[in-house]
Amino acid sequence: MAVAVAERKVKVAELSLRAILCVLSALAAALVATDTQTKTFFSSYQKKATFRDMKAMVFLVFATAVAAAYSLLQAARCCVTAARGVSPTTATTKRSRAMAWCVFSCDQALAYVVLAALAAALQASVIAKRGQPELQWMEICGMYGAFCRQAGGGIASAVGAALAAALLAFVSAFNVFRLYGGDKSGGAARNGGGATW
Amino acid sequence: MAVAVAERKVKVAELSLRAILCVLSALAAALVATDTQTKTFFSSYQKKATFRDMKAMVFLVFATAVAAAYSLLQAARCCVTAARGVSPTTATTKRSRAMAWCVFSCDQALAYVVLAALAAALQASVIAKRGQPELQWMEICGMYGAFCRQAGGGIASAVGAALAAALLAFVSAFNVFRLYGGDKSGGAARNGGGATW
Repeated sequence: MAVAVAERKVKVAELSLRAILCVLSALAAALVATDTQTKTFFSSYQKKATFRDMKAMVFLVFATAVAAAYSLLQAARCCVTAARGVSPTTATTKRSRAMAWCVFSCDQALAYVVLAALAAALQASVIAKRGQPELQWMEICGMYGAFCRQAGGGIASAVGAALAAALLAFVSAFNVFRLYGGDKSGGAARNGGGATW
Repeated sequence: MAVAVAERKVKVAELSLRAILCVLSALAAALVATDTQTKTFFSSYQKKATFRDMKAMVFLVFATAVAAAYSLLQAARCCVTAARGVSPTTATTKRSRAMAWCVFSCDQALAYVVLAALAAALQASVIAKRGQPELQWMEICGMYGAFCRQAGGGIASAVGAALAAALLAFVSAFNVFRLYGGDKSGGAARNGGGATW
């Protein structure tokens, strides 16, 4: 009974994290992808800043859009599986393992991709905000204030999305590797060596 | 017997990955931290480029130095534990779990930190190499060729270190979560629900 309750808690945590990841990723992608500002100089010369000016922002939009779509699909699958229920006769251990491995691999890869995109975008943003005078890279946020504020909002959402993705990878790792722990009477857990060094 | 062989393979893989991570991280930190080039203009005006000019490179040196030191300590612990051997009477399951959790948490955090530092450094390097003309950020590698080549070597080593760190986090996740899979007769693995959604 306690195991069933713990199972349920893990499922609820997983679904919540997928929903949070989906919302925050979509928000980050939308904020950054629609970020643009036009400045007029000397009443005729116009200059436009868009997220395409920074490759890191393009990568962030791509990574968060993929994360949002993937999370939506996974959350839908979670709901369908939970509603249908999986009986002992329909789910073999082999099938469970294959599916758990697939989900874990995708979740872990997604966590790394979102984090890498976030780190690159943060680096570009720091240069945009503060400049790098030693290299003659001037700050641009003084000129494009609204552009930088909206990009900041997108990056803040991406931080939340990256945290959710990391936690999800953790839950998925739990789901896959516990399927390999059935040999406590004879293997690693008995001699304590497998996990302690 | 087959379990013992598998155990041994996991241990050898873990030790190898820790050694690779240690060497590549140390190499990356050394290459980037010693990277400097001085250019003389008009036979009197000197300009010096160092890794400190880019915050992302400072972060990369910090992250890879931490990774090298941490991997060295962990590899030493692996060797000591393997040489000493852990008997069933000295290692309790509770202690195994606590240690496995600690190692997994540190390994996963390290993988994320190294990857984030690498992504930020890569972004800064791309700007240094190609420039970002839309934002008036000019490329600097034409002027500081040797500086950029050495930084490139450091980043290539960091790519290898990040891959090793990700694989290590994977092995550590296996080591910790398999300790929770002993209830196959009554829990997740029986009804197939825990890992399949």
